[in-house]
Amino acid sequence: MRDHAPDAAAARRRIVDALLAVFESRGFARVITPVFEYEEVLALGLGDAARAATVRFVEPSSGEVVALRPDITPQIARLIATRYRDERGPVRLCYEGTVVRLDRGARAQRELLQAGVELAGVAGPQGDADAIALAVESLAAVGLPRPTVDLGHLGLAREVLSALGLPDDALAAARRCIRKRDASGLSLLLASARGSKQSIAFARLLPDLAGGLGVLDDARARAPSGGIKRALAELADIVAAVGRRGLDARLHVDLGEMRGFDYYTGVRFQAFVPGAPDAVLGGGRYDALLGRYGRPSPAVGFAVDVDAVAGALEHQHDKANLKPKAKGE
Amino acid sequence: MRDHAPDAAAARRRIVDALLAVFESRGFARVITPVFEYEEVLALGLGDAARAATVRFVEPSSGEVVALRPDITPQIARLIATRYRDERGPVRLCYEGTVVRLDRGARAQRELLQAGVELAGVAGPQGDADAIALAVESLAAVGLPRPTVDLGHLGLAREVLSALGLPDDALAAARRCIRKRDASGLSLLLASARGSKQSIAFARLLPDLAGGLGVLDDARARAPSGGIKRALAELADIVAAVGRRGLDARLHVDLGEMRGFDYYTGVRFQAFVPGAPDAVLGGGRYDALLGRYGRPSPAVGFAVDVDAVAGALEHQHDKANLKPKAKGE
Repeated sequence: MRDHAPDAAAARRRIVDALLAVFESRGFARVITPVFEYEEVLALGLGDAARAATVRFVEPSSGEVVALRPDITPQIARLIATRYRDERGPVRLCYEGTVVRLDRGARAQRELLQAGVELAGVAGPQGDADAIALAVESLAAVGLPRPTVDLGHLGLAREVLSALGLPDDALAAARRCIRKRDASGLSLLLASARGSKQSIAFARLLPDLAGGLGVLDDARARAPSGGIKRALAELADIVAAVGRRGLDARLHVDLGEMRGFDYYTGVRFQAFVPGAPDAVLGGGRYDALLGRYGRPSPAVGFAVDVDAVAGALEHQHDKANLKPKAKGE
Repeated sequence: MRDHAPDAAAARRRIVDALLAVFESRGFARVITPVFEYEEVLALGLGDAARAATVRFVEPSSGEVVALRPDITPQIARLIATRYRDERGPVRLCYEGTVVRLDRGARAQRELLQAGVELAGVAGPQGDADAIALAVESLAAVGLPRPTVDLGHLGLAREVLSALGLPDDALAAARRCIRKRDASGLSLLLASARGSKQSIAFARLLPDLAGGLGVLDDARARAPSGGIKRALAELADIVAAVGRRGLDARLHVDLGEMRGFDYYTGVRFQAFVPGAPDAVLGGGRYDALLGRYGRPSPAVGFAVDVDAVAGALEHQHDKANLKPKAKGE
C-alpha cells in the first residue's frame, strides 16, 4: 500500500502509455475488467499460487465471497469465453490495471500495477514467438532494450513429473526441489519413484538444465519419452521462430522452471533487465484456461510489472548519472 | 462489477487522458494512491455516507481491517498533510483511479472510475471559483460544454440546523426532510424546535430555496442570523467570482443541498449534462479535512465520474445520429 508522488506517478503513466501504444499498434484492443469480482468466478481461472495469494472478503448483505484479482489473465479469459464466444479468428486484447496479492511472508497485501496482452486462438510456436517478440519490443519501447529472456516449458515439466510414478504429495515436493535446485532433496524423493530408469534419470537432471540454448541439445540427447521429446522439440521450434525475428534479446533456457505449474501448459517466459532484482515481465502459454470458462481455445500472453520497470529505469538513470564522463563530453 | 469492451475502454481512456491533460496544464501534479489501505487511516477522512459505503476486509494474518477506498480525496488529504507538510504555498494535486462503494439498495459493491483535483492552501471564494472554473473547463475538454452547475453551501446548512435547538436525531431527520424536499415532514420536526422564530421560519424555506441566482437574493432578504448571512454573502461572492470568468455554464442555486454534510464546510457544487441521469462531477470546499490528518489547511476539489461522462457522451452521440439531417447534408 503505497502512494506515488508526482514524479513516480508520471513515470508509471509514461510506462503504461508506452506499453499500451505498442500493444495497440499490434492490434491488441484494450479492455477494462473489475478490480474485484465473485470469488468462485475468478478462482476458476487461478493457479494454486494465485489462489493462495487472493485477498477475499464477504459481501456484508448477501454473504457472497468477493475476491480482489491477483491476476488479470483469468478475467480476460472469462471475457473472451463470453463476449468473444462466436469470434472465429484470433482475439487480441490488452489491459492495464492493479492486482492485489497477499504476501504471506510480509504478512501484508501488495498492490501491483500491470499492463499486459492476451492472444487467444493462435496455437503453437508461432503464437508463442509472437508473444515473446511483442514482450521484447514493448520493453524496448519503455527504455529497456536487450533483456534476458528465460524460457521454460511447463508441459515438459508435467511430462517429466508424471513419468515418475510418485504420489501427489511427493510430486509437489519434487517440484519444489527442482524449482529450488535442491539436487539432494530431489534425489531422496526420486529414490521411491517407480517410473522407468531413464525417466528418473532425466528428472534428476532438471535442476541443472539451465543456461544457454545448448541446454536444449543436451536435454534432447537424454530425453526418455515421446512426450518429453515433443515438448523439447516445441521449445526448440519456439527458439528458432524467435531467432528468425532477430530480436534484440538474450535467450536463456531453464527447464527446471516450475512456477505457474497449474496454470501454464506450454512455454513460460520471463524477462530480466539490469537494475530489477526480479522479472520485469512474465507470461506463457495457457491452453487449458479458456476451457475452464466454457470456450476451449489455445492462448498465450504476458504481463509487465510496471513498478519493476519503473525501478529498473530509475536504477539505470542513477547509474548513468554517476558514470564518469568520457573526455570531450 | 463490470467489464468494459474495447470501445468502452477506449472511450474511458480518452476521457481520463483529456481530463488529466487539463488538470496538468493548470499546474496540478498527478499522484497515485492505493486502492485500499488501513481502515482507521482512511476512515479519519470519510464522511458518514462514505463510511457506510466502505467495503472492508480483515487482513488474514495480522487481523487488521483494510478498506477499499470509497473516495480518493481523504487519501490526497493524507498525502498533503504528510509529504507536503512543509509546503508553504498552495498544493495542487490530481489523480485518476477506481473507488469502490457498497450500494446497500442493490446489495452489491460498485466500482467507479474517477478523475479529480484537490487544491489546498487557497481559502475562500477565489479558490472556490478556481475549482468551479476548472470543473467547467474540464467537462468542455471531454466534449460536454455548457453544463448546469448546482451550487449549495454546507456551511450555510450547518448554521441553519444548529440554530434550531433540536436534538441530534431530530437534526438528522430534518436534514433528510430538507434533502428530499419533504416540507410536511420538516414542519412536523420543526414543531419541537426551540430556536428563534426567524431561524425556524428560514429552515422551513430551505427545501424551496432552489432555482436561478435570484434564490440568493430571496434568501438574503429572509436570513435571520449573522452566520447564515455570512454564508449567503460568501456564496454570492463565489457566484460573482465565477461570473467574472465568463464560464460557459448555467448556474443554479440549491440551498437545501445536504449531501456531504459531515465532509464539506463551504460551497458544494455538482455538474449536470444532458444524457446523464446523475451528476457527472461533484466537489466542494472541505476546510476541516486536512486538519484530521494533522495539517489544518483550507482546501477545495472535485471529482469527475468518468462512467457518467462516458454515458452522457454515448447518449449525445446516439441522439445526434438519430436526428433528421438538414437538406444538403
